[in-house]
Amino acid sequence: MDTFFQPASIAVVGASDRREGNLVIKNLLYGYRGQIYPVNPNHRAIEGLPCYPSLEEIPTEVELAIILVPAPAVPSVLEACARKGVLRVMIQSAGFAEVGQRGQAIQNRCLAISKESHIRIWGPNCMGLVDVPRKYFFTFMNPGVYEDGLIAGRISLIVQSGMLSAIFLAELNRRSIGVGKVCSIGNKADVDECDLLRYLLQDTETDVVALYLESIPRGRLFAEIAREAIKPIVVLNGGRSQAGARAAMSHTCSLAGNSRLVDSVLQMSGVTLANDIYQMMDLAKALDMIPEVKPTGRTAILTMSGGAGILCCDVLERHGLRVARLSERTEKVLSGIFPDWMPVANPVDLFPAVRLHGRVPTYNQAISVLLEDPNVDVLLIHYVAGLEGESLDLGAIKNKADREGRVVLFWLMGRGNATKSFRREAQSRSLVVHWEISRAVECLSAAVRRQCRQRRNSAGGSTTPSLPLKIPQESVLTTTAKRVLDEYESKRLLDKWEIPVVEEILVSTLSEAQKAAQRMGFPVALKGLLPGEMHKTERGLIQLGIASKPALKNAYQKITEKLTGRGRILLQRQVEIDYELIAGFVRDDQFGPCIMFGLGGILSELQPDVVFACAPLKRLEALELIRNIQGRRLLEGFRGMAPLDQERMADILINLGDLGRAYPQIEQIDINPVAVRKGLALALDANLVVNPSG
Amino acid sequence: MDTFFQPASIAVVGASDRREGNLVIKNLLYGYRGQIYPVNPNHRAIEGLPCYPSLEEIPTEVELAIILVPAPAVPSVLEACARKGVLRVMIQSAGFAEVGQRGQAIQNRCLAISKESHIRIWGPNCMGLVDVPRKYFFTFMNPGVYEDGLIAGRISLIVQSGMLSAIFLAELNRRSIGVGKVCSIGNKADVDECDLLRYLLQDTETDVVALYLESIPRGRLFAEIAREAIKPIVVLNGGRSQAGARAAMSHTCSLAGNSRLVDSVLQMSGVTLANDIYQMMDLAKALDMIPEVKPTGRTAILTMSGGAGILCCDVLERHGLRVARLSERTEKVLSGIFPDWMPVANPVDLFPAVRLHGRVPTYNQAISVLLEDPNVDVLLIHYVAGLEGESLDLGAIKNKADREGRVVLFWLMGRGNATKSFRREAQSRSLVVHWEISRAVECLSAAVRRQCRQRRNSAGGSTTPSLPLKIPQESVLTTTAKRVLDEYESKRLLDKWEIPVVEEILVSTLSEAQKAAQRMGFPVALKGLLPGEMHKTERGLIQLGIASKPALKNAYQKITEKLTGRGRILLQRQVEIDYELIAGFVRDDQFGPCIMFGLGGILSELQPDVVFACAPLKRLEALELIRNIQGRRLLEGFRGMAPLDQERMADILINLGDLGRAYPQIEQIDINPVAVRKGLALALDANLVVNPSG
Repeated sequence: MDTFFQPASIAVVGASDRREGNLVIKNLLYGYRGQIYPVNPNHRAIEGLPCYPSLEEIPTEVELAIILVPAPAVPSVLEACARKGVLRVMIQSAGFAEVGQRGQAIQNRCLAISKESHIRIWGPNCMGLVDVPRKYFFTFMNPGVYEDGLIAGRISLIVQSGMLSAIFLAELNRRSIGVGKVCSIGNKADVDECDLLRYLLQDTETDVVALYLESIPRGRLFAEIAREAIKPIVVLNGGRSQAGARAAMSHTCSLAGNSRLVDSVLQMSGVTLANDIYQMMDLAKALDMIPEVKPTGRTAILTMSGGAGILCCDVLERHGLRVARLSERTEKVLSGIFPDWMPVANPVDLFPAVRLHGRVPTYNQAISVLLEDPNVDVLLIHYVAGLEGESLDLGAIKNKADREGRVVLFWLMGRGNATKSFRREAQSRSLVVHWEISRAVECLSAAVRRQCRQRRNSAGGSTTPSLPLKIPQESVLTTTAKRVLDEYESKRLLDKWEIPVVEEILVSTLSEAQKAAQRMGFPVALKGLLPGEMHKTERGLIQLGIASKPALKNAYQKITEKLTGRGRILLQRQVEIDYELIAGFVRDDQFGPCIMFGLGGILSELQPDVVFACAPLKRLEALELIRNIQGRRLLEGFRGMAPLDQERMADILINLGDLGRAYPQIEQIDINPVAVRKGLALALDANLVVNPSG
Repeated sequence: MDTFFQPASIAVVGASDRREGNLVIKNLLYGYRGQIYPVNPNHRAIEGLPCYPSLEEIPTEVELAIILVPAPAVPSVLEACARKGVLRVMIQSAGFAEVGQRGQAIQNRCLAISKESHIRIWGPNCMGLVDVPRKYFFTFMNPGVYEDGLIAGRISLIVQSGMLSAIFLAELNRRSIGVGKVCSIGNKADVDECDLLRYLLQDTETDVVALYLESIPRGRLFAEIAREAIKPIVVLNGGRSQAGARAAMSHTCSLAGNSRLVDSVLQMSGVTLANDIYQMMDLAKALDMIPEVKPTGRTAILTMSGGAGILCCDVLERHGLRVARLSERTEKVLSGIFPDWMPVANPVDLFPAVRLHGRVPTYNQAISVLLEDPNVDVLLIHYVAGLEGESLDLGAIKNKADREGRVVLFWLMGRGNATKSFRREAQSRSLVVHWEISRAVECLSAAVRRQCRQRRNSAGGSTTPSLPLKIPQESVLTTTAKRVLDEYESKRLLDKWEIPVVEEILVSTLSEAQKAAQRMGFPVALKGLLPGEMHKTERGLIQLGIASKPALKNAYQKITEKLTGRGRILLQRQVEIDYELIAGFVRDDQFGPCIMFGLGGILSELQPDVVFACAPLKRLEALELIRNIQGRRLLEGFRGMAPLDQERMADILINLGDLGRAYPQIEQIDINPVAVRKGLALALDANLVVNPSG
């Protein structure tokens, strides 16, 4: 990868005296100090550089080729690269997979050549690379983007969209956020987000990586890289809506995955998700500037406006953060500067005290005692810049905060020039400043969540489970066509993999059913199983709450009628249920074998509350997955019910992952519902899809 | 009210040569052209104006008094006002109800004097009034706020927080949003948000009213005013979190209500809710600039960045808006300017076409055909300002949009100066411009929702139902102490008010139960009713699914044991349930009699999905309330179930409101669950709380 970022020499195939062919040369001349070789048989010189009719006529070695010629001409250029020994190529032309079959065929040819000749291809259909600190512009981006000067920084970007990479760069700059490297990866035929993420995570000039992606074909690898990452990673996922996914398909030929699964797996891997461009930038900046925050995130609020303090509380609570309870010492010190009638509370409304003692002395005293308060992890200061009198000593505040291990955030207001210079100073001291309180708290909350995950990761826990050496043959899984196992077959398999299932037995006559029910004890349930039938309820194939022998006879007759001679009948213990969960295994195109966990029941179908993670799951991950659902309060002993035995639930998820991984022909497993009674989870119904060609 | 806003003369009691007493005089001198009378026995003149030792010594009539003296001195000043005949008073001093009992007592005395003398009081603990177009500053606000010049506009504010009113003013200005009147109402002991809202809704200089409130004591009146309003109303509600509500209590002495009820009732009344300061400002501005939009809100997206188009789709879907399906004519015209390989779709990615035909001609052609497309209600243009070449003709675009009845929104990016001038021009042409796509769509979505409601309101529908003339006496409701009616008593009352209830009968012996069950048909349910007991399930007082005589005997014994001689036993038809809803009546402190509707079941307790509206409900309102829950899909024929009979459900809600209103001693009614089977709703369990002193 290093050669892409710091080549000793660059050939530009398709350089010219106008448009993109000219822009690339101009952009290279702006800051790149290595050899530049324009290549174009129709020119003798471009921008004062000698121009070569072909790659092979360049006298010296070439480390990187930037290709701008039309798509159909690209394969022969690649062949020339192979002959010349150019092993790094950026194809910035469009007209490949994104334009349909013909383009796809050209892209495939390029890939074939690259494999054969060990050439790495960056692109096609991309805008290449910008390295702001080095002033490298390996791109046909409009020079307008950098002509006003760019702010160098330590946030690097990977962008699957040409124009957006230029836009990101310009907008980050307009928002005074410094940028390191910007990688525009387009169709990512060869070099993809995984390659670049890995590179940037090791890059000593990058602190945070932010990505705009429309697909993550090597999602599993991406998740693994993210999981091991020390640096913060922010992902803005485009194409999550139906219309967006369609558009992504025609834009960079991306098959967007199941967005719920993608989001969930990325979050489990420690990625911070964004949903808008500026929010992504703000998150990246905040994670860069808040490398450490106590995971309790208890926040003290300092303001001169009672109303603003109230809004801070509201927003903190909305984002799941806690308004700190001040220590006795803090209360005592503050009540010394507050007027008599005013009780000390958090939010700390300084307005009355400021009228007594002046603004800056009051602020300083309050800031000092709050930063020393053992109950305060974060100090959120609502501040109006440009008021009369001196301003805050930001350097002293930052030093004190660092000494005490606290985070200070500013919610800034005030007049234009005053806010500008305040921001500039705060920035230089690595203090985070926001205009909108909800954005400020959103960023803080992302930093806190990241911190929680880092602690979990460093806690380690058991190593990744491995499958048993000898995996038993399962005849029910041997099939030549895709098929759905029935409930009984599915649960037998779950049972073998130590997933607790409800007590049940197949019966083939009424008298068998009567005897089994007697043994099991009433009430029982009776189910008609039809091959491939996944909607037993709708088909009238389920009879619940059978409390007596006559009722069983009646139910047996009803189900026999519905079955019309096909299928088989299952007698089940009727269990009492406190609530329903769901668990599943799915083999995702991007992320491979994954585990799903969530709330069950009809309402959860309406507004799904499910989370996903890559299998295999470590125990700590399984436990975290369980706690990641929105309705987690249900599992903690809700309304007097016993709390869920989370260890047992974790076992189920881990074992489900092992079962799915053990047999590659298993495409999907759904345990729906997982019935919970007195905290114990039990597979009540399940089905398993086998697909030998999967 | 008019005298508050345009008094012919103002006395400032507590004027002085420094601090607030001086600021008010300076601020008045800035733009107010009426008579100004400083009052202070210790001064002869202030800022060049003669100063009077007392109100009564002012030689002419005084229309408005601004009071700045310490709280304990205020009642005697009010008495002086009464003697002098000053009928409008703004108390800007603090130290009243917000500081505790002593202050509350002073506030009460002020109110007593005002009632007696027909004086209207504005405040106390407030910053008074600013009228930007008139340059009136009846306030001790720091002149820094207006010294740079303020932008006059047609958005007026009502703010229950002194500092926030100054902050709003300054920040609106910084964001180039024009402001009309800013009313800071503080403790609102007399003049409150209802008085001012009514005034501003009739004010010919105000188009939109935005409010920051910490409580709405006359919530019901507020909702009624809002319901009749033609102008948009935006409310930012402070103190919705627990910590925020506590802070609101000590800030302006506000008892924040049940935030879910407040939000819900306000929305039903046509109010747009905000949750952050700038978002509130953006919403107010957007509603001002988008007075008309088709309620279908089908949006076409125009961009030069495929990635940006994809993000637009994602955000539109997240806010419940639709990505338009382009008409055949549009597709034909666009395919004429697109390169051959590129299919036409929405989002319309103009990048390849721009390379063929140049930027502005391509944009113009696309904008023109999209504005004529009958399937497009809104055109969202992602635009990068400051690129080479000419810029868009915004005037022509706006004219065309108006002619075609379409809304145009810009999502703007680009270099500093270019974006500034673009914004300025767009603003002058009443075109909405946003930086963040999610904020742009949030505002659009608010405009669309408002439009839907306006149509509903103008559709009229049946008039407000009135109660029957003769309301029957109900002996169960005659009680001297608060009491909870049992399930049976509650449902008898529901039944009388034509709310369908499950078939049931009280039984006092086993043989009575056996006979009743025989008549009703098995299965049945048996419940033990204990006076005041609201958790029958937890107490083991419910036996469900009793399918036979022996089972009934068994169940009867169990319940008899649990009852230990008290209470009574209810036999109920066991009904099948597709899903559960809840409905209720509550008498809210702020909003009076209200109806609640929502999803039932355990998950809905976890993440409540309930909505509220003031009773009585018109039929159209009841139907709207039903459709306002997030899980509305459940009611529309989910998973093959019959759709809810919404007319019947509306009847239940309307009748429930009538029942509650008919008997003032009814404090609360809960029907939980309302069982739904085959689309028909039925009260399955209910309880009713009577409170004679309520």
